[in-house]
Amino acid sequence: MQKSGFVLHGFWRSSTSFRARAALNLKGVEYTQKSYRLREGDQRQPDYLAINPQGLVPSLVTPVGLVLTQSLAIIEWLDETFPEPALLPKDVQGRARVRALAHAVALDIHPINNLRVLSYLQNKFGADDVAQAEWFRHWASATLGALEQALASSAETGTFCHGENVGTADICLAGQMINNKRFDVDDSQWPTVRRITAACLALPAFQAAMPAAQPDAVT
Amino acid sequence: MQKSGFVLHGFWRSSTSFRARAALNLKGVEYTQKSYRLREGDQRQPDYLAINPQGLVPSLVTPVGLVLTQSLAIIEWLDETFPEPALLPKDVQGRARVRALAHAVALDIHPINNLRVLSYLQNKFGADDVAQAEWFRHWASATLGALEQALASSAETGTFCHGENVGTADICLAGQMINNKRFDVDDSQWPTVRRITAACLALPAFQAAMPAAQPDAVT
Repeated sequence: MQKSGFVLHGFWRSSTSFRARAALNLKGVEYTQKSYRLREGDQRQPDYLAINPQGLVPSLVTPVGLVLTQSLAIIEWLDETFPEPALLPKDVQGRARVRALAHAVALDIHPINNLRVLSYLQNKFGADDVAQAEWFRHWASATLGALEQALASSAETGTFCHGENVGTADICLAGQMINNKRFDVDDSQWPTVRRITAACLALPAFQAAMPAAQPDAVT
Repeated sequence: MQKSGFVLHGFWRSSTSFRARAALNLKGVEYTQKSYRLREGDQRQPDYLAINPQGLVPSLVTPVGLVLTQSLAIIEWLDETFPEPALLPKDVQGRARVRALAHAVALDIHPINNLRVLSYLQNKFGADDVAQAEWFRHWASATLGALEQALASSAETGTFCHGENVGTADICLAGQMINNKRFDVDDSQWPTVRRITAACLALPAFQAAMPAAQPDAVT
């Protein structure tokens, strides 16, 4: 399949969109972006619901019109379609480790701290900005503390989450750590997480995926 | 690898433990279970934290002592280690579709409706049983409505989420639908979701994975 003509439907500040951008960049796939202002509800307009009935970003549309949804499924598709550089290890055991690390972030932090959940907390329980930030920090810290322990204690951890090759777990971790800054999460207690995040963010693929580097960024 | 001597650390009512049980049963893998009473906090005791620093179930320990965590990573590992019957389609596009359907449930419903989140809602915002059930139904319905549309409108949907072979998306969907019953989620508006769930629950592998069929069930 050609490596150009992709369209990523996303939002500059969305950490799941960041994951897709970082993976596309690492694979050297060229894409244009269509932006959906999440707070304004662009992602729930009929045009986008026709692409993705969930009304969530990101979606990736391939040059032949295939619609891919869910950031981790998009990354697995990219890895199976464009094998190099690999975002998962070659060995089954390593793949399980990387997926588990990625899923700890992607399932146990991000969904609970997503904009739609924070908005619902505000509407239902009157959670103000302070309470929302406390909620965010609680779930981020619970998982990142465990991840720090898992990463620091494993001989399989290298420059990145798994050895010397950047991959899916790094993409999820870095996206979360970028998001954390918006809610003043104190990451000083997670030196391994910080070190790996810094290694990721030094890569051109990650730099080009950064929220502030996107065409739709409002800073 | 041998198909016996596995230990599943989980809990009868946990829908992520259900996923692991269903996948193990479909693969014909024999396992014993170690139960953690989630409301009592068994999963946060030192013995289990040494296995899984996140203090979440399930974890799967293989006959050679490899510890696998995160239900979807466990299922992918099982599928790569014991390829038949396959829980993902052989084609890359089909795999992306099944993973996206599975992730819609596993990322966009379950983490938000997990016991630890409901407990936190109670402690922080005084959400009583009624408010917790409303929260649960809100997130379950938002995604299942979109899934109904995606499944009903696709020619790739068959007896199961993807054709005639049961797989990862079905496992996640059925686990969610079982969980929904505890919170009186009205599923009458999702006929395709209901039909697929019924087809899953008719399978011996799913029947043996049902919460009430587990040794630690309290009914």
